[in-house]
Amino acid sequence: MKTLTSLALKSNADGLYVLDQRQLPHEERWVACTSPEHMVELIRGLAVRGAPLIGIAAALAVAHHARNGANAADLRSACTLLRGARPTAVNLMAAIDRLLALPELSAEAVIATAEAIFEEDVAMCEAMAERGAQLIADGDTILTHCNAGGLVAGGIGTALGVVRRAHEQGKKIHVFVDETRPLLQGARITAWELGKLGIDHTLICDNMAAGLMAQRKIQKVFVGADRIAANGDVANKIGTYGVAVLAHFHRVPFYVVAPRTTFDGACPSGRDIPIEQRDADEVRAGKSPATSRVYNPAFDVTPRELITGIVLDDGML
Amino acid sequence: MKTLTSLALKSNADGLYVLDQRQLPHEERWVACTSPEHMVELIRGLAVRGAPLIGIAAALAVAHHARNGANAADLRSACTLLRGARPTAVNLMAAIDRLLALPELSAEAVIATAEAIFEEDVAMCEAMAERGAQLIADGDTILTHCNAGGLVAGGIGTALGVVRRAHEQGKKIHVFVDETRPLLQGARITAWELGKLGIDHTLICDNMAAGLMAQRKIQKVFVGADRIAANGDVANKIGTYGVAVLAHFHRVPFYVVAPRTTFDGACPSGRDIPIEQRDADEVRAGKSPATSRVYNPAFDVTPRELITGIVLDDGML
Repeated sequence: MKTLTSLALKSNADGLYVLDQRQLPHEERWVACTSPEHMVELIRGLAVRGAPLIGIAAALAVAHHARNGANAADLRSACTLLRGARPTAVNLMAAIDRLLALPELSAEAVIATAEAIFEEDVAMCEAMAERGAQLIADGDTILTHCNAGGLVAGGIGTALGVVRRAHEQGKKIHVFVDETRPLLQGARITAWELGKLGIDHTLICDNMAAGLMAQRKIQKVFVGADRIAANGDVANKIGTYGVAVLAHFHRVPFYVVAPRTTFDGACPSGRDIPIEQRDADEVRAGKSPATSRVYNPAFDVTPRELITGIVLDDGML
Repeated sequence: MKTLTSLALKSNADGLYVLDQRQLPHEERWVACTSPEHMVELIRGLAVRGAPLIGIAAALAVAHHARNGANAADLRSACTLLRGARPTAVNLMAAIDRLLALPELSAEAVIATAEAIFEEDVAMCEAMAERGAQLIADGDTILTHCNAGGLVAGGIGTALGVVRRAHEQGKKIHVFVDETRPLLQGARITAWELGKLGIDHTLICDNMAAGLMAQRKIQKVFVGADRIAANGDVANKIGTYGVAVLAHFHRVPFYVVAPRTTFDGACPSGRDIPIEQRDADEVRAGKSPATSRVYNPAFDVTPRELITGIVLDDGML
């Protein structure tokens, strides 16, 4: 097998390893994935997260299962299991469906396809970064929500890949990072990643972005996407829609960065995208009364009217 | 001295006691306030919080200092100290200035004035609750941000007092509670208070309100205020402005509930209200890299154009 390495995933002849993103930023703990069932658990528990990475990791989990001798029937049931690990990100379904569409589920074909999915993602990230970085001017202050960087992809990521490329081009930028409750992917992961890249940034609570926009301290918003409906509506991490409304009100351009594979032609509009409801304790976090009811959707939908542009690997909408 | 009792404060001949609101909802710990300096510490640390309550507690701290034999000069310096405990809530300045305006700082006059401030607050809360509850229809679903209930006042509170009165009138209502990062006053305190009152409620992260509004699940927003400028701009807990923008975009009525004393005639507009910046670790909460910069304003300003109405004790704007 090829040696494939990204910020949060390693695949080689020895096995498949993922960075447990729940432990960031305090610890960089790598976990050896032992089976497709184990990968389902890692994805559900958010050790492995981010739409593109979930698809890549799931496909590679099937590839390693094949290399370990699983037969076609085993591989098919592993695919079914992984495909249902999370309901919203379309990349997971797309990656698994690509395996299931193979003429035969041979080890050779499965491994080659999974590795191709990884490598294609690296190339798509590069293409998005190049295209998106043109939208960023020297001196821009950018807001991002959740985490859409090198941790969610095979390559340098989507929204944060764009920011990284602008930084590499020598543009002086500042990034405001929404902490992104309830799981704090912004506070824990985006801040850590920007720190590693040496990009100037400031952490805020999600409810502080509005005040910054009112003070004209944010010039552009860049976010990723978990699924894009055929009409251009975008499902992304909970809170994205609110940021889009605020950006619209304050006339701040709002960009989504995602590979073409994030489009789901089978979803006519945002209303048709299933939104995962997660556990109440993620919100309570031991702080609120256990008797209080909780609403905890993992995503929300931003209608296309609020989106200035979608930066794709093969173009811009 | 009179026996005065509210949800978070007790004053009587034995002394002055405050509920340590940082321990809620897990523990109802009462703290005996031993001196004006101690009250400054309790206010700064947010053990005592909420604009009206801060003013009442500070005035009563001076009253108990007087009862314990402090002379006029001591009382004057206690007033100066307490007046600067927090910079945004105008009630604190107003309460202390009322003491400082006394013809003489005698124990008798100081005690009578502090007790009057408490009792007037009870009456103002009742008046606001009666007026505001008329805005709530049977079956309404209401969003509130931060905590503006019986814990922040001598009486039943401001925004939550209105909700409580509507509930007492037999109207079937449901309250969505913004958790209110970074200090989670909604998750910890409002949810606890609504539970105690038997009012149906659901806790959400601040970034989930937008999606609920898009689904038409919120009919009205009620919030409190820390200071209202002469032109009607309102400073309130950070995140309030974002909720106001979202409510405006979704055509959801947005009401502020506050006593007339929250108005600051010396502040022409919201731009003139000082906004307290708080410690970075409140946002980091041990989750994000210590090297990341943090922006942590305690309040933001909602311009009057976004406010449907301000419910006062003596009228409505």
